[in-house]
Amino acid sequence: MRLLDGLPDFPFTIEARDGAARAGVLETPRGAVLTPCFMPVGTKGTVKAIAPERLRMVGVQIILANTYHLALRPGSEVVRRLGGLHRFMQWDGPILTDSGGYQVFSLRDTARIDDASVTFRSIYDGSKHVFTPERAVAEQQALGADIIMCLDQCPPGTASLSEVKEAVERTSRWAERCKHAHQETSGRGTDGPQMLLGIAQGGVVPELRRESVARLTDIGFAAYAIGGLTVGEDRAAMLDTTALTASLLPEDRLRYFMGIGDPEGLVEVIARGVDVFDCVLPTRTARMGTAFTSAGRLNLRNAANTLSKEPLEEDCPCTACQGFSRGAIRHLVMQKEILGLMLLTEHNLTFLTRLVTAAREAIVAGRFASFRDGLDAVAC
Amino acid sequence: MRLLDGLPDFPFTIEARDGAARAGVLETPRGAVLTPCFMPVGTKGTVKAIAPERLRMVGVQIILANTYHLALRPGSEVVRRLGGLHRFMQWDGPILTDSGGYQVFSLRDTARIDDASVTFRSIYDGSKHVFTPERAVAEQQALGADIIMCLDQCPPGTASLSEVKEAVERTSRWAERCKHAHQETSGRGTDGPQMLLGIAQGGVVPELRRESVARLTDIGFAAYAIGGLTVGEDRAAMLDTTALTASLLPEDRLRYFMGIGDPEGLVEVIARGVDVFDCVLPTRTARMGTAFTSAGRLNLRNAANTLSKEPLEEDCPCTACQGFSRGAIRHLVMQKEILGLMLLTEHNLTFLTRLVTAAREAIVAGRFASFRDGLDAVAC
Repeated sequence: MRLLDGLPDFPFTIEARDGAARAGVLETPRGAVLTPCFMPVGTKGTVKAIAPERLRMVGVQIILANTYHLALRPGSEVVRRLGGLHRFMQWDGPILTDSGGYQVFSLRDTARIDDASVTFRSIYDGSKHVFTPERAVAEQQALGADIIMCLDQCPPGTASLSEVKEAVERTSRWAERCKHAHQETSGRGTDGPQMLLGIAQGGVVPELRRESVARLTDIGFAAYAIGGLTVGEDRAAMLDTTALTASLLPEDRLRYFMGIGDPEGLVEVIARGVDVFDCVLPTRTARMGTAFTSAGRLNLRNAANTLSKEPLEEDCPCTACQGFSRGAIRHLVMQKEILGLMLLTEHNLTFLTRLVTAAREAIVAGRFASFRDGLDAVAC
Repeated sequence: MRLLDGLPDFPFTIEARDGAARAGVLETPRGAVLTPCFMPVGTKGTVKAIAPERLRMVGVQIILANTYHLALRPGSEVVRRLGGLHRFMQWDGPILTDSGGYQVFSLRDTARIDDASVTFRSIYDGSKHVFTPERAVAEQQALGADIIMCLDQCPPGTASLSEVKEAVERTSRWAERCKHAHQETSGRGTDGPQMLLGIAQGGVVPELRRESVARLTDIGFAAYAIGGLTVGEDRAAMLDTTALTASLLPEDRLRYFMGIGDPEGLVEVIARGVDVFDCVLPTRTARMGTAFTSAGRLNLRNAANTLSKEPLEEDCPCTACQGFSRGAIRHLVMQKEILGLMLLTEHNLTFLTRLVTAAREAIVAGRFASFRDGLDAVAC
């Protein structure tokens, strides 16, 4: 096990570069992750509406689970006693857990925060909870994912400059406490070694991003995440901030953009040097009856699909496209049949996985720019 | 194609008998069905919460779909134009459609009936519809199942003797009209030949059952169903009526009991000479968070399951039992996660399919009585 300051440091190798875009391999104890890589979100211990074995068939390499939700229901200790998150979810590949911070701050009306901790009320029963950096690490240790995250303060896109500045300050101090807490157990969780990632904040303010990255890299993490984006800010500013932050982060470390999953957006962050990303978008979009296709989004509720014998996407290998007509899927969606959600979820994840795989191949072949231009043409 | 009065007559061979119980084979154009056989219900064109390929893996041989629902949503003509029910549902094995009669009469407060037709309001939008025997056949021809049913009048368990008598009369006259309507298209539907079944009514009144069977066998059908039971009557009377009706039906013809799916009940109707049966019970029970097990029903909502590492059933080959703990499944059920419904649905169908397969093996081996006694002991 390679270590960094006594903490697990899973090897990350960059195989090819094309402009700022990179094709790499992260070697986790539960298998290699080829990057760029999209991570589906398994909010409460399941990627909604798809079984784990099917995720494998789709080509998913790593999944994300939410500490906020699992810590409250069924409780991290319950997951630990049931054998840890891999056994609990029946996913033997790598898992990443977030710190819970994002959910705590999304419910900010009920959150009280100071340097020591953040106090919030559970969305499940209104009960009061106190999260500290140490508790965020402890919850993630109990859950037992392979990759865990520091507790950060993520302000909304509408935050004032001073609020964003304060968030950078606090996130930096909390990152240090998280690393220390993790070192106390030698970086081990319920189920083996855990790699801890620091999260850069700073909104869309270049000097605050510089400050945040400088503070985090001073502390030193095995890899880094770009947080605090796609929270309501302007898209151009989001992309510029991504490019800047990625360029400031250590070249040889994995970069994780937190919270992007639209086909256009993830190609753009790959172009700016991001390696992994996650989002509920593809699975949530599916449950709303919409399919990703290379001709754009397809809303199955549209009556024009009623008599369509076409598949969602011509050469797609997913279960939906290997036989179900758009008309049949529209019927399932209109009747709120679970199979409709299952089929669209698998399709959207297949679409994104194939898109990211194609992006990787383009990077390796040194033709990423033309790949990206080609996507503009098909409006995906 | 073997014909009976010009209508398709799929060969049914009885391989073994043990008491009144039979092990047989029905040879449909879409594959053989080994009997006894449980048919899961795909109400609106999907067995809820399970994909067709998974049904195959479970060992399901034939599925049922509801004409009432499909005729109203998306409409039988839509299904026909999308290539018929097999293409629509992505199920290439045999399919049976009911006539719609059961649903029409379950909503009897809004149903007006005379010899010509039954008028009812759609549960979807309150619109008025008129079903005739001819229309019930036409809807099923458009849908294109392999086995279709005559329109019958199914009175509730609380019906008076005169109501039950009237239902036998009307069902007999309608059966004749259905057969005639089917002969006009030489027994073909959207997707190939269709075998039409007559349905015996008569409540739990022996002389009315005799009358009903006599009338139906006079008309002559390739196979027969026992309808009008499990509608609220006493269980002992239901079983006695099943035994009587089965004994009156032609020995060499398939017998279908409409609407039984509890583990105990289906073994009892097999014991009385029934070959196939259907029910929403296993799939509906699953969606309510309950698993069939050989130790009885297991309600996953029970807090006693929170920390249980056990599978639902020790040697069960289903996805749920091949790794998921009761604790994890309980969490999914409590959080209303779709995966919980998927796992329990697959488990309950696996449980019933294995139970019926074991019953068949016991009949073939001439040890059905001890098999049945053994089940009493494990309280399944």
